[in-house]
Formats: sequence, C-alpha cells, structure tokens
Amino acid sequence: MKTVAQQMFRTCDKLFTRKTLNDVQEAHPSNIETAAQMDNIQHLTSPSHLSIVEDVREGVHHVEAVMERAHHGGGWLLSGIICINILILGCALVSGSAFNSVAITAVHRQIFVIVLLLLTMLWMLFYTVFTFRKDQAVLFKDSHAGPVWLRAGLLLFGLLSFLMDIFKIATYVGYLHCDSAVKVAFPVVQAVFLLIQTYFLWIHAKDCVQLHTNFTRCGLTLTLSTNLVVWMAAVTEESIHQTEIPDLNVSVSHKMYRASYGDKKCKCSHSACGTFKEAFYYLYPFNIEYSLFAAAMAYVMWKNVGRLVEDHSHHNVKFHPKDVCLGPLTGILLVVAGLVTFIVYEIYILKEGEEKTNKALLIHFIMNIVIVSMMSLSTIIGCIIYRLDHREHVSEKNPTRSLDVGLLVGASMGQFIISYFTIVAVVATGARGYLNALNLSWAILTVLQLGLQNYFIIEGLHREPFHVMQEAALHTNAHAFQEHAEMNPVVERNKSIYILTSSSHKLSLKRRVLKEVCAFLLLANIILWIMPAFGARPQFDHSIEIQFYKFTMWAAIVNIGLPFGIFYRMHSVASLFEVYLIS
Amino acid sequence: MKTVAQQMFRTCDKLFTRKTLNDVQEAHPSNIETAAQMDNIQHLTSPSHLSIVEDVREGVHHVEAVMERAHHGGGWLLSGIICINILILGCALVSGSAFNSVAITAVHRQIFVIVLLLLTMLWMLFYTVFTFRKDQAVLFKDSHAGPVWLRAGLLLFGLLSFLMDIFKIATYVGYLHCDSAVKVAFPVVQAVFLLIQTYFLWIHAKDCVQLHTNFTRCGLTLTLSTNLVVWMAAVTEESIHQTEIPDLNVSVSHKMYRASYGDKKCKCSHSACGTFKEAFYYLYPFNIEYSLFAAAMAYVMWKNVGRLVEDHSHHNVKFHPKDVCLGPLTGILLVVAGLVTFIVYEIYILKEGEEKTNKALLIHFIMNIVIVSMMSLSTIIGCIIYRLDHREHVSEKNPTRSLDVGLLVGASMGQFIISYFTIVAVVATGARGYLNALNLSWAILTVLQLGLQNYFIIEGLHREPFHVMQEAALHTNAHAFQEHAEMNPVVERNKSIYILTSSSHKLSLKRRVLKEVCAFLLLANIILWIMPAFGARPQFDHSIEIQFYKFTMWAAIVNIGLPFGIFYRMHSVASLFEVYLIS
Repeated sequence: MKTVAQQMFRTCDKLFTRKTLNDVQEAHPSNIETAAQMDNIQHLTSPSHLSIVEDVREGVHHVEAVMERAHHGGGWLLSGIICINILILGCALVSGSAFNSVAITAVHRQIFVIVLLLLTMLWMLFYTVFTFRKDQAVLFKDSHAGPVWLRAGLLLFGLLSFLMDIFKIATYVGYLHCDSAVKVAFPVVQAVFLLIQTYFLWIHAKDCVQLHTNFTRCGLTLTLSTNLVVWMAAVTEESIHQTEIPDLNVSVSHKMYRASYGDKKCKCSHSACGTFKEAFYYLYPFNIEYSLFAAAMAYVMWKNVGRLVEDHSHHNVKFHPKDVCLGPLTGILLVVAGLVTFIVYEIYILKEGEEKTNKALLIHFIMNIVIVSMMSLSTIIGCIIYRLDHREHVSEKNPTRSLDVGLLVGASMGQFIISYFTIVAVVATGARGYLNALNLSWAILTVLQLGLQNYFIIEGLHREPFHVMQEAALHTNAHAFQEHAEMNPVVERNKSIYILTSSSHKLSLKRRVLKEVCAFLLLANIILWIMPAFGARPQFDHSIEIQFYKFTMWAAIVNIGLPFGIFYRMHSVASLFEVYLIS
Repeated sequence: MKTVAQQMFRTCDKLFTRKTLNDVQEAHPSNIETAAQMDNIQHLTSPSHLSIVEDVREGVHHVEAVMERAHHGGGWLLSGIICINILILGCALVSGSAFNSVAITAVHRQIFVIVLLLLTMLWMLFYTVFTFRKDQAVLFKDSHAGPVWLRAGLLLFGLLSFLMDIFKIATYVGYLHCDSAVKVAFPVVQAVFLLIQTYFLWIHAKDCVQLHTNFTRCGLTLTLSTNLVVWMAAVTEESIHQTEIPDLNVSVSHKMYRASYGDKKCKCSHSACGTFKEAFYYLYPFNIEYSLFAAAMAYVMWKNVGRLVEDHSHHNVKFHPKDVCLGPLTGILLVVAGLVTFIVYEIYILKEGEEKTNKALLIHFIMNIVIVSMMSLSTIIGCIIYRLDHREHVSEKNPTRSLDVGLLVGASMGQFIISYFTIVAVVATGARGYLNALNLSWAILTVLQLGLQNYFIIEGLHREPFHVMQEAALHTNAHAFQEHAEMNPVVERNKSIYILTSSSHKLSLKRRVLKEVCAFLLLANIILWIMPAFGARPQFDHSIEIQFYKFTMWAAIVNIGLPFGIFYRMHSVASLFEVYLIS
C-alpha cells in the first residue's frame, strides 16, 4: 500500500516538472543556450567532427540538468487553475441553492462540500505521512508564518465550530426519518475535517516545503478553496436564516427557509431539537471566522512552497511593559468600559421591546463613538510622530510582510463597506432622530479610523526596527571615539558608557509616544473585536439600513463584511504588537 | 494663476514626503543609523566635545538628505486609501440607487459621478500643464505599457461611448421641461471627459513619472476609481434596462425602470426620443468596455510612477508571416465561418419567433463549440511541445509581465463565472433538449479552453525568447570552433556558415508548430471577441439560466462577466502575438 502510494506520488510529480531535490539550487543564467544548441547539433553529424559534437553534447547534458531544476512554472499555474475552478463552481452551486429552491437544494451543495472536505483530508494525510516524514522535505521554516494569534484564533474558532457541528448532528438526527441523511453526514464529515485541519495547520503552518512541490501546491490550493467554499456556504446559510426574523415579511425568504430546513411537515423526533437548532445558529459566525483563518494560513503556506528562507538572526527584542503607562492604562479602562456596555447592550436587546432596544443602541453607539474617536486621535498623534521621525524605511523585500499588509488592507474592506453603506442609507433618508445621527457619526468616524490605522500600521511595519539602528549607531560612535581617543581618553570612555546606558534604558520622547499609541490602539482593537465577535449586531437591531436596502441585501452585506471586520481587528492587534516592538 | 497653482502643487507634495528630483537615486543601506545618532546627540552637549558632535552632525545632515529620498511610502498609501474610499462610496451609492428608488435616485448618483469626472479632468489638465512640461518629469518610458491594441481599443470604444453620450443628450433634452437637468448635464460632462481622458491616456500611457510622484499617484488612483465607478454605474443601468424585457414580469424592475427614466407622465417633447433611447442602449456595452480599458491603463501608469526602467535593448524581432501557414489559414477560415454564422444569428434573432430563435441559437452554439474544441486541441498540442521543449524560463523580474499575467487571469474570471453558472443551471435542470445539451457542452469546453489557454500563454511569456538563445548558442559555437580550429579550419568554417544560415532561415519543427498554434489561437480569439462585442447575447436569448437564477441575478452575472470576457479575448490576442514572436 505504502509503496503504491509513493509510486503514485512520484508519477504525479514527474508529470509536471521532473523536479528533484536539486531544485533548491538556482539555475545559472549563463546556461540559456541549450535549446539552440540542441537544434544545431542535428547538423553536426559527419564523423570527422565527433569530438566537437561530444564536447557540445556534454555541455548539453550538464545544462539540461540545471534547466530542469529551474523549470517550476507548472505546479504553480496548475494549482491556481484548480483553485479558480473549485471556487467558481462552488460560487455557482451556492448561489444556485440560495436562489433556486427547486432544482438545487442544500443537499446538493452539501454533497459537493463533503467531496471537497474528503479530498482535502486525504491530501493532508498524504502530506503528513509521505512528504513531511522525509528528511529533506522541509528544510526551512518561515518564522513569520502562522503567528501565535492566528493559531490560537484557529483553535478557539475551531472548537466552537466543532460544537456547532455536534449540535447540528443532534438536530438532524431527529429529522432522519423524513429528511435526507446527507444533512447528518455533512456535520459529521465537517467535524472530522475540523480536527484534522486544525492539527495540520497548527503543526505545519510554518513549513516551506521543498519536496513534491507541485503536488503540495495543488493540495494547498485545494485546502484554500475548500475553506472558501465552506465560508461561502456558511455566509449564505446564515443570511438565509436571518431572513426568518418575523417582523420582515419578504415572501422569497420564507420559501428559502422551507427549502433549507426541510418541509414543515417533517417533524423532529426528539424534544431538544429546537434548542439545538437555536444554539447552532449562534455558533455560525465562529465557523465563518474559522474558515477565513484557515484559508489565510493555507494561502501563506502556498506562498511558502519551495521558498528558501534565510534564517534571519532574531534580534532578541524584549517586551518592556513598564516603558509605557498612559496608553495601556487608558486602553484597559476602555476595554472594561466597553465590556460593561456590551453586556448591558446584550441584556437590553434580549429583553426586546422598542424602548429597550433604543436604549441599548444608544449606549452601544455612544460607546463605539468614544472608542473610535479616541483611536483616531491617538493614531493622528502617531502619524505626526512618523512625519517628524527620521527613521529609515526598510528597503529589503519581505514576502511575509507584503502578505500581512495585503491581508490587513483586504480585511479592512469588510468594515469599510458596512460603514459606507450605512452612511449612504442614513444620509439619503435625512438622518432624522438621535439614533440615526449617532449611527452616522459612528460610521464616518469608523471610516476615518480605519484609514488612519491602516496608514499607521503599514508605515510602522516598513520602518527600520529601532534596535537595529541602535546597534548601527553604537558602531558609529565607537568609531568616532577611536578617532578622538588620543585627545582625552578618560572622558570619552565615561561618555561612551553614558550613551550606552542611557539609550538602552531610557526611551526618547518620540519612541515612548509611539509605544503608548501602539499599546492603546492594541487594546482598543481588542474591545472592537470582542463586541462583534460575541454577538453585537446593531446593524440588524437598528432598522434604517434594512428598510433602505431591503433585508436580503443588507444581510448579505453584513454577513460578508462583518467576519472580515472581525478578522481585521485580530490582525490589527498582532500587527500593532509588532509595530510596538520595533518602535 | 500659474504660480499659485505651482505653489499649491509644491506644498501638496511637500506635505507627504518633501521629495526632490534626487529620489531617483537610491538610499544606501549603510546610512541607517541617523535616527539613533540624533537621539544620542542630545546627550553630547558639553563644550569640550564639540568636535565629535560636529563630526556626527555632519554625518547626520548627509544621511538625512539620503533618507528623505528613500522615504516614499506616504503617497503610495494615501493614493490607495483614496481609491478604496471612492470605490466603496461609489459602490454604496450605485447599490442604493438601484435597490432604493425613493431616497436615492439616478440623479444623486449622477451628481456624484459628475463631481468625480470634473476632479479627474482637473487633475489631467494639471498633469499635462505642470508635471509633464518639466524636463525631468518623465525621464523614462515603459515600452511595455499601453500597447497599441489597448490604445486602439480605447479609441474605438471611446468613439462609440461619445456617440452614446450624444444620443443621451438628444434624448434627455426632450425631457428637460419635466425632468432633472442633471440628466442632460451628465452626458455633457462625460463626453468632455471622454475626449480629455482618451487624449491623456493616448499620450501619457507609457510615462514613468519622476516629479510630484505623490500627487501623480493620487491623481492616477482618482482616474482609476472614477473609471471603475462609471463602470459600476453603467453595468447597473444596463442590468436595470434589461429587466424591461416584456416577457419577464418582475414587479421590482418596473419600479426601477420608472425611477430611472422619469415618471411615465413626463412625455418627451420631440419625436426622435424613442429612436435615440433605443440607440444609446445598444452602445452601453462599449462604454462599459471603455471604462475597463481606461482603468487598466491608469493602473499600469500608477504602478509605473517613480519606476526606473532600464531601457531594454529591443531585440529587433521580425514578424515572418510566411514561416507559418496551416495555423493562419485554418484561423482565417474559422473567422470567416464565425462571421457568417454570427450575421445569420443576428438576422434570425431580430426576426423573433421561437422557431427562428432556436435555429439561431443552434447555429451559434454549434459554431462556438467547433471553435472552442479546435482551440482546446491546438492548445493541448502547444502545451505538449512546451513539455518537450527545453527552453529556459526567464528568471528576471518583470513588473509589466506580472501585471499582464494578472490582468489576463483576472479578466478570464468573467467568462469562467458565466460558464460555471451555465453548467450548474443546465445540469440541475437535467439538460433536456438538444439546445440545453449544446449549451452545456459549450460551457464545459469553454472552461477547458480558458484553463488551457491561460496555461499556454503564461508558460509562453515566461520562456526565454528564442532569438536570445540563438545568439547565445552562436557564441558558444564560435568558441568551440576556435578551440578546434587547428584541426581542419576549412571544413569548420563551412560548417559554421551552414549553421548560421540554417538556424536563422529554417525553423525547427517544434518552433514552427508553436508558431502555428499561436497564430491559430490568435485568430480564433479574434472571432470569439467579435461575436459578444458586437451584440451576440445567447445568454439572454436562451431562457434556461434566466428561469433558473431569476432575471435580475442572471443579468447582473452576465453584465459583469461578459465585458471582462471581451477584455480577456483582446488581451489574449495581444499576449499570443507576443508568444508568437518569442517562440
């Protein structure tokens, strides 16, 4: 069995590039003449010139070997094509099952996803057993990939998604006598998938695979697209579920609802059905978030396949929390205040009744406006310091950083879209009433804050780390002192010691302010993450956008945008921590 | 006036980076210590060490100058933020005006677009008058940017869009007594914009701007986002217009229709109104295409701001059409056959009646299946030759090529999406009847063809040009001959001449087949471009997808996907020509 699989593996890989471990070496640009030589050789056949022919041929053989190593376009392209095809097919199926309840039902979509999940699991097992076990498979690890916040988030959301699947199984087992068995099979497969994928990504997120690179690339894009299809399906289901809300009588949504949850004639055989169903819908957002996290990690792994990372000597940056105090203090106060208002908001919303809802919204809006304005202000201070600060920009290319920036900006789109749609809706309807005015201010301030924060983080990540500059500076000073040493050596030495101690223990004002700003923003992002992640949905509690855009469209916007917004906040926390360290 | 504007210009630029012409030079990585030095200087204040201080300070001044040149993150980021904000606000406004006919009407959206158009025109004038006129403003030109097909396409679509605007003006002048004047103002402004932008892009598409880079970056993203907002607005209007089709009684669409074209009570004051209205809706797709072209060119210009292009010595590749014959011949036959069936199709469709429509569709489907299968076959042959061929991959980085590949793959998404949605719809409804079967085969073959063609083009663009390899090979041979010259010089010389002449005049079999494949694919892409660009819409003539996805959704998919598909075909033609030359 094992040998057969290995054989398959090798054939599969040979099909594309006939690549060996040697492709770690790079092709020499001086060997580009081979093909032309080969074309020419056919004319050199008279026996008297055998020696030349042989000379050339020898060169050809050598060059051929080098060339085959350089030939690595195939797998990259093929994996991209696979990814595109799965994604678009998934998109068509999901849209089909949402908009046409007759021909394509949720069952068809679930069968498609089950196939994808099984294939991905199979590949992950293959990878763990065959590729990773080999000595030279993973020569390098990308220390920036799969940072701890991403893996911890994956684990947390993975656990909650697992819970969701268990509730789903419990619910649909009750419908087994009158509904499709696929509805039970799907959460079972998904639960197994969650376990395997979380383990896989936890262990292998940092790998820079060097063996079977084509097969690995295809496998990783399969993982990526599977997660994105699961994400699309979850977003759609969540949106359809929300259209169930009683005070909105859209005729289409009820048809969809019936199609998704079995005909109303089909009654659940056990009593806990309703509770389970209620419960698993609360856990949907975590599953959406989990899929995004896993997709991001698979993408980073895909980018790292075949990459040769130089092992950067980690500048042992230490985290001195005592350097700063104002930022963290205000930040912690903000987090506590945010948590209190969040709990009050949730309690008021659950009590129902328009007056309570309005009161809850009032509190929530005001709190958010306070948080966002304080963040904007502190970010402006940070940006001004960047303008005054004369630290050099990092010039070397760093794919992980580019990816980080890309993910940051991309994820911020989610919140941007929600805010702009709110602005348009509120302005167009005239912003009557205090709640609308607050909602508008919140949206405008959020747009401002997002723009500023993106600027601040990206600028910060592109600055030369302070400790690097410090080392360089000390170097220069030492040189200066050597030159002037003959003049008055004793004083110099004292001065030198003074500089060394002062620069390492006391922060300059600029650095300190930057660190304060980072610490404050970090904590503020945490509270802005907690509120939507644990269920605050003012977008649905306040009705202006629903009336303006119709429910289906608004639900789609929020359900697509908000998970990205949550991802953005987590990502910001991690990036701000990095900016804190290098400031 | 001129000096004031120049002052504004300078201040604007200084605000971000205080950049001078010097930023053409790159910062030396050895000067990273400045900030740390500056921090240290504050401790060196005793008069006895003035000499050291001055030494260090001198270094600081030098380094500061270098640093300011390297500091170029601001404009890039700011322009990105501007682009995102305009795009998302535009998206919200367009969606709002499409889904909510009460609070936001087409007039609001048009006012927003007018503001954007005016700002963009203002910037273009500024650029032409102030930036471009300066000697050092454009030191380099990117020879790959703004290729002739893109500029010719821009001109063609620009002219047709201009015609559309004239028809629009003529129509809405008739409604002036009872409808908003904005509806006349909008096409007037757009017509002027078309003239200015087409001139601007025609002249400046290749510029690599070195002066006022931040201001230019922001201006270019403004141009980019304006074009994309115009594109979004046009796609939405086109989709709404199509919902007018009588046999589809969707209640929402009629309300939209009324909102867009003025209340039915408002009668046109001249008799040609109906004709003009009919005419300008036929020209909408060209305007959509124009916006995409302009956006692509603005994006390339934005990428090129501040870029230092090495002036690649253009290998004077000659186009020998006589080298190939089978490919072009079959291609031309295919184009002629395609044109004939396209005309027949259009005539039959215009005659209306179900039987005629079915006959037209039958002809169109069969013709397309023939074209696409032949293309797939020839692409497979081309791919096999790539596998056999041992030409080196180009290793140097080339931003224009990366962009080209990105645009190619991105544009192909449009056709991919349409095809997959068709596949899902037809398969789900059981593919009954010969028309459905043909439609399904066409969609599947198109997906296959797109994947193969993308692979073929990307592989081809990444191969070392043959003439480069030839030169290198001749070099090697010359060397070999020198070594063996003492043995029998006369024969050698003859041989050498033989090789030279044979290799330059007669193509090897592999190269010839590659060229044949390229030529055939090129012509086939032309006919696949002509058919949708000049009005073939089997997606709407055949009703299966409309019934399956509901009209609004299907119209949105086709109206977004098809213009990208058309762009893809044109782009493929250009890329295939390049592949032809380097094979």
